[in-house]
Amino acid sequence: MPQISRRGLQMPASPIRKLVPFAEAARRKGIRVIPLNIGQPDIETPTAMLDAVRKADIKVLEYTHSAGNESYRRKLSGYYAGIGIDVSAGEILVTTGGSEAIVFAFMSCLNPGDEVVIPEPFYANYNGFAVMAGVEVVPIRSDISTGFALPPIEEFRKVITPRTRGIVICNPNNPTGYLYSRAEMEALREICLEHDLYLFSDEAYREFCYEGTHVSAMHLEGLDQHVVLMDTVSKRYSACGARLGALVTKNKGLYDAALKFAQARLCPPALAQIMAEAAVDLSADYFDAPRAEYLSRRNLLVQRLNAIPGVFCPTPGGAFYAMARLPIDNSDAFCQWMLESFSHQGSTVMMAPATGFYGTPGAGRDEVRLAYVLNREAISEAMDCLEAALKVYPGVV
Amino acid sequence: MPQISRRGLQMPASPIRKLVPFAEAARRKGIRVIPLNIGQPDIETPTAMLDAVRKADIKVLEYTHSAGNESYRRKLSGYYAGIGIDVSAGEILVTTGGSEAIVFAFMSCLNPGDEVVIPEPFYANYNGFAVMAGVEVVPIRSDISTGFALPPIEEFRKVITPRTRGIVICNPNNPTGYLYSRAEMEALREICLEHDLYLFSDEAYREFCYEGTHVSAMHLEGLDQHVVLMDTVSKRYSACGARLGALVTKNKGLYDAALKFAQARLCPPALAQIMAEAAVDLSADYFDAPRAEYLSRRNLLVQRLNAIPGVFCPTPGGAFYAMARLPIDNSDAFCQWMLESFSHQGSTVMMAPATGFYGTPGAGRDEVRLAYVLNREAISEAMDCLEAALKVYPGVV
Repeated sequence: MPQISRRGLQMPASPIRKLVPFAEAARRKGIRVIPLNIGQPDIETPTAMLDAVRKADIKVLEYTHSAGNESYRRKLSGYYAGIGIDVSAGEILVTTGGSEAIVFAFMSCLNPGDEVVIPEPFYANYNGFAVMAGVEVVPIRSDISTGFALPPIEEFRKVITPRTRGIVICNPNNPTGYLYSRAEMEALREICLEHDLYLFSDEAYREFCYEGTHVSAMHLEGLDQHVVLMDTVSKRYSACGARLGALVTKNKGLYDAALKFAQARLCPPALAQIMAEAAVDLSADYFDAPRAEYLSRRNLLVQRLNAIPGVFCPTPGGAFYAMARLPIDNSDAFCQWMLESFSHQGSTVMMAPATGFYGTPGAGRDEVRLAYVLNREAISEAMDCLEAALKVYPGVV
Repeated sequence: MPQISRRGLQMPASPIRKLVPFAEAARRKGIRVIPLNIGQPDIETPTAMLDAVRKADIKVLEYTHSAGNESYRRKLSGYYAGIGIDVSAGEILVTTGGSEAIVFAFMSCLNPGDEVVIPEPFYANYNGFAVMAGVEVVPIRSDISTGFALPPIEEFRKVITPRTRGIVICNPNNPTGYLYSRAEMEALREICLEHDLYLFSDEAYREFCYEGTHVSAMHLEGLDQHVVLMDTVSKRYSACGARLGALVTKNKGLYDAALKFAQARLCPPALAQIMAEAAVDLSADYFDAPRAEYLSRRNLLVQRLNAIPGVFCPTPGGAFYAMARLPIDNSDAFCQWMLESFSHQGSTVMMAPATGFYGTPGAGRDEVRLAYVLNREAISEAMDCLEAALKVYPGVV
């Protein structure tokens, strides 16, 4: 039998999805599982987006341009102008989800054996995309005690080697919810210029900031050739299943390289582009309602978590995730135990063990990530359940 | 400025799309360009597929399962059973187009530096996917004089090295239209078993066979652990923009590896899955009409081509492509000249130079690929135009 590749073996299983079999078993036992493990919001996808597809006059569902429909890219250019990012349609490459934007960015910029520095905890799938590109992830620690602020720039300097080619950030952050300050973004700018590094900036959650202002990597002066913006409509419009994102860069050589990867896979999904083009036409105050809803959920979640003895949850400034430190021995074991062995008033909570978000082995064993993507009632019930669980969990420390 | 990766530089530009600027310039001059360069059929996407999306009751367009909706995979299992392929829903991984199935297959099976043997001319994007995976493509020649039959198995043996890990076929073939016989498929089976090679089988065009019977790689005895079927709904249902394909394998280790790549990119497009699930319910005779239409186009195209002095076009047994040998010096120059410098009754023809489909430098300089994806009238006009062009092209030999 022919062998599986080294990449295939190295490829990490999703830490967010690996508990799914235990959740399914709990449901089979009649237990209601409240899913706070995954960033799948219950916010409705805007009707205008779905209507655009329903009403589209399609006879042949054809390939689109490999970079995405020009009409959509022109509208996106207007969307970016509205948030202070000056990019033309020719600097936007429409991708199949934000995921593909990350793959194209890594493939176009990095050689096998190159290193990228990523503040940990970080979005676990960066590991997978790094394996695909043969790239080494070098984590540097951001800590729950500072609310997961950017590590001091000295920490970056310590790990930079001749093979370091870039820094990856997610702002506001998944999994921590941390929103980088202007000063932190300027520090990143400085180190990228100092060492001629790419700055890969995942801004999937930019519309959901609750404290301060979002500073995009593309707002930074003099960094046009270094910044690759990786974007998606998944969270912005609660349309995760659409699979539509974008790679945005003013670096022409990089854009041209990424376009070749895009041509190889022909085009991004056509129906999703129709939806997303309609989304750009939503009224300017569209985000007010979901933002207010997430803020109210965040406040409830953080308050409830910090009211549980031994639990600490810093207040996240954006996105819809919170990282909490729990008085437990092992977050993997705890999250599995919640599904396998615990219920409270017929319910249990599914959370993501933080270990999967750290590159450093052993880190995150007393932390979990909670996505506040469900309504306040569900969050409240989840917190009742977690509070009860921590009273009886055998691994409480 | 940070550098572009070696992969980004090596990545080939699409040979099918590189003439697009010349076509656009011709159109600006008022010339009608008849596009026979790309496999974008004018056959209508089945209404039932589009209606399924229009009528779907969607509130939140959520992520689907990373392997694709189970309901769709169960139906696909039934579709495959109908063509003599026995696979369960758990052996089918739904992908974003056939393209992603090829990437996942290469990534899961092959290490950087490994070699795959591919009969040339071959689908040009295999080159791009090989660059992404760091894999070497080793071409062996199939020749227009035999209608692009599979090269003798001795030719495979000559190029197999310790680094050879697989053979890639496309059946029926893009770009040649060749349909592999049972004997040829058995020869491939033999060499795969002999050298423990993967058989990557791209069967995007299986519904469109005009001579003989389609033999799937999955019909071969004793090759369950070696075969990776790469499939798509793009051509089957004339839904290229949907971006939905499948990787199918009975090799559990390979499936599990591919699923990890699938988890990293979260899920395939949700709306396309709704469409494709409806497609499986189309009546059994759905393919009769498009197949008859393609056959009639093929007959016209091949007859017209062979009636032009100095032109030879073997009759393709399947798909909707024909390769023609023309009495020209250089197919790249000729195809560009057709767009830049020639028109006949206000029209010109866009064709794909065959050079982009060969791995051997210099091969295919007197061949072009024509996709018979337009109606008979357009094909007839295109042939009038080509015939007139070959009377005046300065590079005629």
